[in-house]
Parts: sequence; structure tokens; C-alpha cells
Amino acid sequence: MIITLGRQHGSNGHDIARALAKELDYRCFDKEIVEEAAENSHFSKEIFDSYDEKRVNAYIVPVPHYVGMNEGFRLNMQVATAQFDVMRSLAEKGNCIFVGRCADYILKDRPDCLHIFIHADMEHRAARVRERYGETKQPMEKRLQEKDSKRKVYYKHYTNRNWGEADNYDVCLDSGALGVDKCVDIVCDIAEMP
Amino acid sequence: MIITLGRQHGSNGHDIARALAKELDYRCFDKEIVEEAAENSHFSKEIFDSYDEKRVNAYIVPVPHYVGMNEGFRLNMQVATAQFDVMRSLAEKGNCIFVGRCADYILKDRPDCLHIFIHADMEHRAARVRERYGETKQPMEKRLQEKDSKRKVYYKHYTNRNWGEADNYDVCLDSGALGVDKCVDIVCDIAEMP
Repeated sequence: MIITLGRQHGSNGHDIARALAKELDYRCFDKEIVEEAAENSHFSKEIFDSYDEKRVNAYIVPVPHYVGMNEGFRLNMQVATAQFDVMRSLAEKGNCIFVGRCADYILKDRPDCLHIFIHADMEHRAARVRERYGETKQPMEKRLQEKDSKRKVYYKHYTNRNWGEADNYDVCLDSGALGVDKCVDIVCDIAEMP
Repeated sequence: MIITLGRQHGSNGHDIARALAKELDYRCFDKEIVEEAAENSHFSKEIFDSYDEKRVNAYIVPVPHYVGMNEGFRLNMQVATAQFDVMRSLAEKGNCIFVGRCADYILKDRPDCLHIFIHADMEHRAARVRERYGETKQPMEKRLQEKDSKRKVYYKHYTNRNWGEADNYDVCLDSGALGVDKCVDIVCDIAEMP
């Protein structure tokens, strides 16, 4: 079984994925997807990091200063494609969880997938981000909206679907309302269905 | 506790709501919202039926031939408002389930609400609609897309939110992938959380 887990920034999606992996004895790939893709490529880890879950857009994700605009677009596409290839190849080995990076779309034709989306209201997300990263100069709500916007644009570009639309997932859970443990319980229970 | 349950046509949302009501010993209001609202008003049941979960729009829901365009818009708004009032008033008595009709938005400020959305893929929905209503002249996929479109427009008009977007609900479930019984189990389990 493969689990894909999309998540809003600050929704505890990463922690839920880690807890699921522990509970189900699955491997969990979050930033590891980026690292693995970078290792398999001739690009630096920095290039991969700068384009991770973003789409080059003059307004949203500026092209790095050391490459031209066209080169930026091309790199962006190559980085995303390399990550998608890594996910397809890891999925072949079974029993793993992929966090973010359009995994639900990339693996949509596999019948052994469970597609999850974790979200929460602004208040819970802001509290979680503050707890993890501390206070930032930028107002928290603006920061979260910008993160959402980047992920939306990235997801739409590579999937032509709307990020966070229930139809794309088997289960969507509000981790703010339900709590992390309940989310883990619900997904474990479904993953263990005969 | 109040449960609101939005659902795609053919997703078995109505049956899930009935099963939940039985399991939890809650009252369930689906078409009953329309009947109750009609009884409390000076409009006929037919007027309520013709505007139920639709928004007057020359292209989507034509104004009935016996009223003018402006009158149509006014009636539409009054019918929806009457239904929303009925839901608010029934919610006061507690322990009930509301199916559709923007209930998640109308009752969003109540802390005792659990907001559910049930969806399924076209194949499952088409099979379900055929089973319940038989074959229709109109191709099934087109029929379902039209139903979705009407509900989207209606929901957007009265809530300014996007219908079926995970963020609006505590739990969204794919009844095609999970099955009706599993959906009922998951929601019951959450509703019974301390």
C-alpha cells in the first residue's frame, strides 16, 4: 500500500505522516524525495531546494539571479520531473508514504494508493508554525497565504487540478478540529482495511 | 452535536446520513428542510422544490414561466433564506444531521458542529444513480456534471466559498473508494469523540 499525503503548511501533515509511517511500519518520504532526486541528477541540492513545490513565476517564485528566465523555467520543470520519477520508482517497492509534491496525481493510476489531504484553520496553523519556527517579521496569516498560493500554483501547473479539492483525495481531515492523534488513527484504520 | 453533510449527487450521501442518524439516534433532515420551510411560509411546496439547492440563472436554472425574471430572483432568495432559518432553528434543539443546502456555512459559528463532505468518482456515482433512478436519455456523465454545476453555483452564491473544497469541512470522504459502511463508521467514531 502507498499513502500520499498532501498538506497545508502548519497543518501538522509532516508529523501525521511520520506517525503513520511508524504505526504502519512504512517508509516516509518528505524532503527525502528532494534529496534522492538531487543525488540522481547532475544538479546541485540547492537548485532542488529552491524549486521544491514551487513553480517559477515572475511574481511568485523569482528565478534565481544566476540563471536567466528561460533557464529558470527549464530547471524548474526538470527538478519537478526528477522528483516525480523518484516517487514512481520508490512506489514500486511498496509500503511507503509520500508527503506533498503532487504525489496523489503522479501515482493516481496505481490501485494500491490511499490519497490523504490534511488541512487546518489559520489559527491552528499559525500556532503550529510559531511553535516550530518562532515568530517572523511577516504577519503569520500573510505568510501562510503565500505558502498556500505557491503550492496551489505548483499543483495546478503539474496536475491541472485544484489543490485541496476533496475530489482529488480519498480522505481529507481537519487536523485542527480533530487533533493529530485522531487523524493518525483514522488513516491507519483505513490503511489496514482488508 | 450537529452534523452537516454536503454530498455530490450519486455519492450515497443521503444513505450515509440516514445510517448515521440511525446509529447515533439523531434526527436527519434532507428534503424535510424544504418541507418544513414551505410549511412555515406562504409559498407553495412546488416553489420550494423548484428552487431547492439551485440559484436562478438564465443559463442554469430558468425562472419558472409563471413569474417574471425579477420575481424569480426574489423568490429564489426567499426560499433559500427560509430553509436557512429552518436549519438554524432545528439546530437549536441539537442532535441532528442536515444534508446539503449550505448547512456547513449556515451553522459555521456553532462550536458543536461536525462538517462532512461525501464525494465519489464518476463511475461509482453513475452506477448509483442508475440503480436508484434508472437509465436516462441524457448521458449520465453530463447529468452528473450539470448537477455538480448547479450545486456549485448555489453554494458559491450563498456562502462565497467553493463547494467541495476540503477547507470547508472537518472530514471529506470518497464513498466510492471507502464504501458506505466505512464512511458511516468513521463519522460515528468522530461524532462520539469525547
